Amino acid sequence: MRAIFIAVGSELLDLDRADTNSLYVARRLREKGILMDMKVVVGDHMDNLSWIVKRACQRAQLVILSGGLGPTEDDITREAVAAALKKRLIFKEEIVAELEKVFKRRGITMPEINARQAFVIEGAEVIANPAGTAPGMYLDDGGCKVLLLPGPPNELIPIFEAVYEKYLAPASNYHIYSRTFKLTGISESETDARCADIYRKYRNPVTTILASPGVIELHFLGRSRNSPDDARRLTDELAEKVRARLADFIFAEKDMSLPEVIVEELQKRHLTLAVAESCSGGGLGQQITNVAGSSQVFLGGVIAYANSLKTGILGVREATLKKYGAVSEATAGEMAAGVRRLCRADIGLAITGIAGPDGETADKPLGLVCMHLSGENFDKGVRQIFSGSREVVKTRSIYCALNLVREYLNQLSADGKGPTGPSNEAPVTSDK
Amino acid sequence: MRAIFIAVGSELLDLDRADTNSLYVARRLREKGILMDMKVVVGDHMDNLSWIVKRACQRAQLVILSGGLGPTEDDITREAVAAALKKRLIFKEEIVAELEKVFKRRGITMPEINARQAFVIEGAEVIANPAGTAPGMYLDDGGCKVLLLPGPPNELIPIFEAVYEKYLAPASNYHIYSRTFKLTGISESETDARCADIYRKYRNPVTTILASPGVIELHFLGRSRNSPDDARRLTDELAEKVRARLADFIFAEKDMSLPEVIVEELQKRHLTLAVAESCSGGGLGQQITNVAGSSQVFLGGVIAYANSLKTGILGVREATLKKYGAVSEATAGEMAAGVRRLCRADIGLAITGIAGPDGETADKPLGLVCMHLSGENFDKGVRQIFSGSREVVKTRSIYCALNLVREYLNQLSADGKGPTGPSNEAPVTSDK
Repeated sequence: MRAIFIAVGSELLDLDRADTNSLYVARRLREKGILMDMKVVVGDHMDNLSWIVKRACQRAQLVILSGGLGPTEDDITREAVAAALKKRLIFKEEIVAELEKVFKRRGITMPEINARQAFVIEGAEVIANPAGTAPGMYLDDGGCKVLLLPGPPNELIPIFEAVYEKYLAPASNYHIYSRTFKLTGISESETDARCADIYRKYRNPVTTILASPGVIELHFLGRSRNSPDDARRLTDELAEKVRARLADFIFAEKDMSLPEVIVEELQKRHLTLAVAESCSGGGLGQQITNVAGSSQVFLGGVIAYANSLKTGILGVREATLKKYGAVSEATAGEMAAGVRRLCRADIGLAITGIAGPDGETADKPLGLVCMHLSGENFDKGVRQIFSGSREVVKTRSIYCALNLVREYLNQLSADGKGPTGPSNEAPVTSDK
Repeated sequence: MRAIFIAVGSELLDLDRADTNSLYVARRLREKGILMDMKVVVGDHMDNLSWIVKRACQRAQLVILSGGLGPTEDDITREAVAAALKKRLIFKEEIVAELEKVFKRRGITMPEINARQAFVIEGAEVIANPAGTAPGMYLDDGGCKVLLLPGPPNELIPIFEAVYEKYLAPASNYHIYSRTFKLTGISESETDARCADIYRKYRNPVTTILASPGVIELHFLGRSRNSPDDARRLTDELAEKVRARLADFIFAEKDMSLPEVIVEELQKRHLTLAVAESCSGGGLGQQITNVAGSSQVFLGGVIAYANSLKTGILGVREATLKKYGAVSEATAGEMAAGVRRLCRADIGLAITGIAGPDGETADKPLGLVCMHLSGENFDKGVRQIFSGSREVVKTRSIYCALNLVREYLNQLSADGKGPTGPSNEAPVTSDK
């Protein structure tokens, strides 16, 4: 089944405003084995829209449009689809009556302009909009299912869902099974180098690698015409082979972020975390506190952007700053230990670096960042040179620091008795 | 001139990965008066791609493709365009020689597979790729200019720019002039209510409102077939009428973020800033330190997520917490004063609130946030109830706090002699 999505709206064509409805619809269709072939963004322009609708309906068996169903002159989706399919628009008194009720509940008279929303394409079923005034429409035009949805996501979703179970899901020919690995501490090219020989052999499942600063995602999508089990077996076979090569880097196999995984693990162990941030400027705390429930394990910390705060609040020694500089493994170590002490946390985590574009010195390049984790009788530091813009360097630093926590917690599990420092001398009690 | 953009890549069709190349290209075309009519995202699929390319070239005078020029079997843009236009693909030995040199410089032998990148569409001009191995191509196919660009932005941009000045810019029929207002402290619906009667009257310039948490953008785009001056006059006429109604909320008329504006203003006045963050969790510092050069004015601060840090580090009184709670104007005030004192900053800025989804109490709803600015002989607090998800509440709080700084600095300018506190008693010296 070929599917084409058409997002209508001039604002989607530029000005940094990407269409997100298509991502929602694509994901839901995919769950039923319908893969989207194409998506189109087109402005509020009668000619352009009816041109593409006509061709899409010739090409595909499912055409979904979003946007352009409002009451204003810019809203031309009804007219354009009717023109493309050579259908009439029929004025429905009962829709006007519904709209008038909606406005009456809000205590206002319906503006005359809203009557435009009562035009329905000949042969289309009207799908009620529980969250707004623009009803959706569904029609089957000689083998092509056409669905018109309003643009605002809170209106689009319920209407899409109503049609999904009734008309779209039963149309699928495939069973689909997908799996995801989320990795950190490894680059895209290294991921590819380690596993390409495995997944390149398979056309089904399809493997997709997505890279963003600090996180690599591997998606496997298997499909079968026979059964859900077949789809699952295909996907599992490939995924397990890949996992054998990448296990150390996988932090999640479901839709969880690295901060979410870490907050959950800290909660399980009743451990608390505090941060000392220089170049990341608060971004580490920001990431952790985006997780609901993080207040159970995250105490807070210090944004020690100026050196005066590193010494004055965190207790980094002047001598350390002088000898090694603010961006050094020694300073990172004292920041982590300092914030752990100051906040009485189980784990202190520090970041200090040169995010750029200024601040480079002869022996310290742009992108140099030192991260350090300080736990009870445990210390681990990492020194990295990250490439990318200021924001990218900050993000990579944050993920690298979070990965220190992940590795520390993994080691706690592996040991049973808890981790030991690099010297391997001291036993550790990690429960408070 | 009709322009269609086609982004090639199966990963762009789902999995939350939106195409961003089209936004860059749309913006650059717009600067020359070429408005994009349509953009299409299509997977790495020969049939689908050549189907849409053929139709786009019949419809438009400019078709720009990105992606699918790599060396692997998935990269089918060359073949699909050649098929759509009924052109041959010609193998160019000189491109192979170039590619071999690139690999030699990296110290490796060219993989055989890269030879695929030496196929050129008959009649196309090859555009060198300074940042990768996939060359771009440009051809004029009977009135339709076709441009093939590689997908990675760092490769796409230089190739696009090379063609832009040479072939695309001279083709425009319109003169364009655009202006932007960026606003904070006002909602989208309030912006619309205050000004819709003005901008609804104009078809040219076109007005677009974009809303994101904490920031509203108003874009005006005027165009003229006659002269650049005409386009400018049209745009200015509308923009000035709107500005008269919204002046207090406009923080920028160019492409600057609110943190950038604030860092610049602080730099001009040699003032320093420190932050005390509870519910925002570091996000305020994160936003400020995303600005290059922020280290000149931003000292850092404290992420006082746990109450023990509010009292222990910032010096918030136990009695205040007990009487008013952590989320209160009183606590916000003590946090701001505390961090100002601790960091020896000119300005202390605090945020404390309930970002949700938990933490609601009988008298304190979800989304309640108190923000406070403490300066020399100056104090101002704001109490707001924000709607939205946890992250949205955090973002709105951050922008609301930054707006306190903006208003404070504006007042310094307006007074000439500096701002005074609510009591209007003490004169203020704001230079350190």
